Amino acid sequence: MDALLPALTGRRATRAFAATPVNPGALDLLCRAVSIAPSHGNTQPTRILVPSTARQQQELLDALSEGNRSWAGTAPLLFALAAVPSHDRLAQDRDGTERELWAFHAGIALGNLLAQGTAMGLVVHPMAGFDEPSVRAVFSAPGDVRIMTVIAAGYPGDPGALPTDLQQREAAPQERLPLERLVVRGTWTGEHGESARSLRRKT
Amino acid sequence: MDALLPALTGRRATRAFAATPVNPGALDLLCRAVSIAPSHGNTQPTRILVPSTARQQQELLDALSEGNRSWAGTAPLLFALAAVPSHDRLAQDRDGTERELWAFHAGIALGNLLAQGTAMGLVVHPMAGFDEPSVRAVFSAPGDVRIMTVIAAGYPGDPGALPTDLQQREAAPQERLPLERLVVRGTWTGEHGESARSLRRKT
Repeated sequence: MDALLPALTGRRATRAFAATPVNPGALDLLCRAVSIAPSHGNTQPTRILVPSTARQQQELLDALSEGNRSWAGTAPLLFALAAVPSHDRLAQDRDGTERELWAFHAGIALGNLLAQGTAMGLVVHPMAGFDEPSVRAVFSAPGDVRIMTVIAAGYPGDPGALPTDLQQREAAPQERLPLERLVVRGTWTGEHGESARSLRRKT
Repeated sequence: MDALLPALTGRRATRAFAATPVNPGALDLLCRAVSIAPSHGNTQPTRILVPSTARQQQELLDALSEGNRSWAGTAPLLFALAAVPSHDRLAQDRDGTERELWAFHAGIALGNLLAQGTAMGLVVHPMAGFDEPSVRAVFSAPGDVRIMTVIAAGYPGDPGALPTDLQQREAAPQERLPLERLVVRGTWTGEHGESARSLRRKT
């Protein structure tokens, strides 16, 4: 294989969903993609929180930011990805400093879930705009459980059904840093230290 | 598609590498897989640090834990994945609490890289056992750059060439929590709060 994997290139976090339901088998595959994700020391600190009733799904929707509520309500699937920091192992440096890995591990698991969902023809849209204590409350999760993202998923729908401002965002090209700013070959330079946000402000 | 993606199921962090070199085009694809990974607000805080000389690759090897040095030296590719926390955006809860996302974002990028490498027939083995200040020093990276993992990669080799204790680890089955412990359907229970480590101690 000498090309990028279609499960990676085909991913776009769009916001228009078809009414087509997502069957339980498809959700099961997304969960299994999370399950087989690696974690250092096989600590598996990631959990998937799925509403079991329409009422609970509405409560999860209510925990989102206003911007996300404006479109995520049409997604047939809405669920959360969490991590339990106390389950994880700390990596240790020579000077005794410890590095936490749970957020990194949850990210790897989300990478797996996104690739699996994309390969299945789903739109899988992870959101950062939510209220963490509210999401915990929806599932009666203890206070030490960290909610990493809430995910809206479903089959792609008609962008024309979205509000006008969101329609424009659906059509926007995927903007990425040029590879020479992302990849450090030998020595870190000022180009690598410049943020994507800072570069966007310049252009 | 109603099965798990082979790029996910085929991944194993084994330790035996063939002498076959990995061509620059293959490394470029791994970098592009990182590049197209999503980040909330498109902040792209992840960087890839690649040694540009054999001497620098040896320095990176020297920054690993003793256990990792015992096998990673035979990998044709050795590189690091980093994140710049200041590049990232904070997610905000209703009570004003802020959530950091950089480690999560670097994890998503690693998920992409692992899937891409697996699809290309590579063994891609991320390690947590390294000294972070030493890795930063190898690339002259500033102190605010966080090294998330060092990755050994190459084509699979003969496990028989490994030390005996590592040979046994290569052949061990992939152990994962049963799905009902990973997936919370409706309400969090004690089963979800039990760690993989705690369960392993019981069996």
